Amino acid sequence: MAGERLLYLPLGGAGEIGMNAYVYGYGAPGRERLILVDLGVAFPDMDGTPGVDLILPDLAWLMERRDRLDAIFVTHAHEDHVGGVGLMAGHLPEVPIYARSFTAHIARRKMEENGQNPDRVRTVDTWPATVATGPFTVGFLPVSHSIPQSSAMVIDSPAGRVVHTGDFKLDPDPQVGEAWDPDLWASVGEGGVRALICDSTNVFNAHPGRSEREVAPELEKFVASASGMVVATTFASNLARVRALAMAGKAAGRSVCLLGRAMRRMVTAAVETGVLTDFPATLGPDDAVQVPRESLMLIVTGSQGERRAASAALSRGKYLGFEMKAGDTFLFSSKTIPGNETGVARIWNAFSELGVEVSDDAGGRYHVSGHANRPDLLTVHEILNPQIVIPMHGEHRHLTAHAKLARENGRAGIVAPNGSMVELSGNDPRVVEHVETGRTYLDGAALVGALDGVVRDRIKLALHGHVSVAVILDDGDTPIDDAWAELRGLPETGSSRTNLQELVEDDVAAFLGRADRKTLRDDDKLMDAVRHVVRKTVVDETGKRPEVTVLVSRLAVD
Amino acid sequence: MAGERLLYLPLGGAGEIGMNAYVYGYGAPGRERLILVDLGVAFPDMDGTPGVDLILPDLAWLMERRDRLDAIFVTHAHEDHVGGVGLMAGHLPEVPIYARSFTAHIARRKMEENGQNPDRVRTVDTWPATVATGPFTVGFLPVSHSIPQSSAMVIDSPAGRVVHTGDFKLDPDPQVGEAWDPDLWASVGEGGVRALICDSTNVFNAHPGRSEREVAPELEKFVASASGMVVATTFASNLARVRALAMAGKAAGRSVCLLGRAMRRMVTAAVETGVLTDFPATLGPDDAVQVPRESLMLIVTGSQGERRAASAALSRGKYLGFEMKAGDTFLFSSKTIPGNETGVARIWNAFSELGVEVSDDAGGRYHVSGHANRPDLLTVHEILNPQIVIPMHGEHRHLTAHAKLARENGRAGIVAPNGSMVELSGNDPRVVEHVETGRTYLDGAALVGALDGVVRDRIKLALHGHVSVAVILDDGDTPIDDAWAELRGLPETGSSRTNLQELVEDDVAAFLGRADRKTLRDDDKLMDAVRHVVRKTVVDETGKRPEVTVLVSRLAVD
Repeated sequence: MAGERLLYLPLGGAGEIGMNAYVYGYGAPGRERLILVDLGVAFPDMDGTPGVDLILPDLAWLMERRDRLDAIFVTHAHEDHVGGVGLMAGHLPEVPIYARSFTAHIARRKMEENGQNPDRVRTVDTWPATVATGPFTVGFLPVSHSIPQSSAMVIDSPAGRVVHTGDFKLDPDPQVGEAWDPDLWASVGEGGVRALICDSTNVFNAHPGRSEREVAPELEKFVASASGMVVATTFASNLARVRALAMAGKAAGRSVCLLGRAMRRMVTAAVETGVLTDFPATLGPDDAVQVPRESLMLIVTGSQGERRAASAALSRGKYLGFEMKAGDTFLFSSKTIPGNETGVARIWNAFSELGVEVSDDAGGRYHVSGHANRPDLLTVHEILNPQIVIPMHGEHRHLTAHAKLARENGRAGIVAPNGSMVELSGNDPRVVEHVETGRTYLDGAALVGALDGVVRDRIKLALHGHVSVAVILDDGDTPIDDAWAELRGLPETGSSRTNLQELVEDDVAAFLGRADRKTLRDDDKLMDAVRHVVRKTVVDETGKRPEVTVLVSRLAVD
Repeated sequence: MAGERLLYLPLGGAGEIGMNAYVYGYGAPGRERLILVDLGVAFPDMDGTPGVDLILPDLAWLMERRDRLDAIFVTHAHEDHVGGVGLMAGHLPEVPIYARSFTAHIARRKMEENGQNPDRVRTVDTWPATVATGPFTVGFLPVSHSIPQSSAMVIDSPAGRVVHTGDFKLDPDPQVGEAWDPDLWASVGEGGVRALICDSTNVFNAHPGRSEREVAPELEKFVASASGMVVATTFASNLARVRALAMAGKAAGRSVCLLGRAMRRMVTAAVETGVLTDFPATLGPDDAVQVPRESLMLIVTGSQGERRAASAALSRGKYLGFEMKAGDTFLFSSKTIPGNETGVARIWNAFSELGVEVSDDAGGRYHVSGHANRPDLLTVHEILNPQIVIPMHGEHRHLTAHAKLARENGRAGIVAPNGSMVELSGNDPRVVEHVETGRTYLDGAALVGALDGVVRDRIKLALHGHVSVAVILDDGDTPIDDAWAELRGLPETGSSRTNLQELVEDDVAAFLGRADRKTLRDDDKLMDAVRHVVRKTVVDETGKRPEVTVLVSRLAVD
């Protein structure tokens, strides 16, 4: 084994919450065999990624070493862990994608939607069953989270055992799926754990995490006392919550209807894979609209204020025949993810205008988190007793705080953001190399690099507007006709109260009249000069510096 | 007095938190004399208002009745109350603008910056002093808030007394400025209060508000135990906090330096108007950079993550000679306003990468709110005992919850969002008319209406990108030369992996070759058709629907 090494390299997820993608390698330097744990997406926003559909980790490093990749493992079916599987499958070699049945069900759908072979996704059993792949033996260790069948990866190599937690919480009674099993985890730690790669999401929360069990009775009370039609939203993938909501509806004598594609898809996947065996009977939308509102409960998508989801649609008016009215009740059984506050408030305010009673999670009464808080993280550190703790699944500040927590408790804690290649073997585990990483955008149907400038250009257009100018010259380089300009996203008039378009056209015409032949002869010089004239006019008039496109046409001799 | 009426009409601030502007009127219907309370701004975001500098209430209703406006009153110097005074002064008649000395100081600066006469701003004394204007007598009733000299307006008219709270909290010891004085407020309520127009910001907080007094000792402990250079940020206008931070620095033996224009401006205004008499001596940046880092404390702007403010600048690297390093300490002595989470996290993460220890308000240890919580609102309802409560300074959901709170306690509560004209006099106070209201954008140097489409166009550009196409025809309507297209914010290649620009140009050229004379002759038809061709090509290739500008040039006969 001399000369071989064990590597950890996050390509996504360490430095942000989203687009998880972690590489492990074992072998001689530069010839390590590789596996990938998770292949997720992150979600765009207007601030930095307007018009983008999804954000994916940049897998260039892995693609350049495609012959060394042996397998992909998916810890659970949240989009930030499985969302990139279908989109990226065609760019990676045809290696197996391993997941447990529920996760595999979701992954196969994603493969199909992207024209990929779903049979590449293989269903695995849980620990102590393992998958042998190259130098690695990998097991799926069940753990509680806010989606069924979440698993930590137990990754064994000749250099020892690594436990990669995936997302987790310590829930003794998660209602659906496996409970947190400290004895099972202790048994995994018995032979010694080289490194724990650990979820950091809730490291700033100093209280022990709360069980999903606490929510169900509160939901039952809530629905029992609610008036009118009851509509509740939560994450579609939180099947324990969806089930608790449905059962609260049933207990209150209401018919239950699921709205939103993701909601129906998740429940279907859970029923088909045997994860949910006792989900109450539901009505389809067509039947549900016939039910008197005081006997109806809808469970809907859109807890984060997403404009196209059912919650937002209902807040705007009639949706699939349903219409919220004064006296109805709406519940956010969810926490608002930072960044989504405005969208959630928009829905709340719209319901408020309709006279609908809105409740949110009420400080935790109607929602609990799916991630381990700081004391829970310490519990896992202690049970597994790893030599090294490497925080993942967090922004830089989360990783730093989590590593500090480990060090305060006598363990080596390494902050390894995306691109940090950590050698886990040897006497001195540390970052040995920095790999270029980044983000890839799914932009419409195209995959574009975050640094390609495409989205940066759109941000400039959004901030400053755009001017198109056409300039035509004859074969003697003499401007023909007046220049024509069209403005987008700029006011009609500026400080001089003159029409801005005419002003721009006049100033370009005046410039063309006085421009020297050297400028007129050279496309680049001419475009630069016209761009400069247009910018100056618009800045003087409006204070804005628009993007300017100059289209120079030179007429050929007939 | 028969046939005369007392009106309340919010033009901004009731239905959002920001751009406060409230009209009161008294007189015969249609001939009421009017006053305006506050004239504030709101802040833009990329989601809905990219590139916009400030958002102002649409004052069209008031401008159409300019001859009836007698005065403007400004409750306090926060931007959402005073920020529009300079910008809008030129659009409103030259009526006096009344404010207390500190607020007046800020308002005069805004008048000067906008080329308006600062002498229109008149300094007033506090209640029981009053200003008589038309049918109204108006007094400035001191109240505690997170800025000095905040005041409620006591508005007397022949139809009775209205108390308009402005922003407030019930702080018995706000450290700077007047304490909450329940006896004074009770005396105002003694003769009976017709209506209370009341701040609703914190109606969802069920705990009694906390005093600014609680923060100072915590800040002192924090700075005493901090290492390296200490940098703290808070709202520049929260002078009690800025002073407490400065004193905590001094107590720890550190030199103190204020960074950021707003920070220096606010402290200067407060010292010049006698509001701050004991602010510790500070160093200018040039002297402060000479001080060893462990003996220095900076108090800086940018607590909300603003990209151009000092906090963000320091997180990016060297700023005015200062540079944060591993072992330094940064404190957010502030709460993150919803919507600003991403910007604040960006700064925190950047500091984390530098090795700077970052602390936030730690669940309230280093920050208290400036607004009255639900129990405090009830206290004010009880002390003034008004016949009507009309919530303001809140989104719709805040107004609704606040009105409900009033009703639950036996008072009439009226939800009156922007544009709701409420008749306060008579036996049946209620909304009597809905006035068209909206928002005006300061966009560079231009004021544009929110519905003008200028910003909507920019959002479209941000989401879908832009294509400019030049088409040239001769005087026989025959296309000359090939079409030329330029793409912005679109990927270079789409699904066919061909250069997208060339594809667009080819498709336009092909279309021009087959277009009939009727289309070629008609500019509008031609532009529509070319736009259609370009969109189709780009949608097919990339899935995006760009904005398309077609510049048609028709060459005249020589």
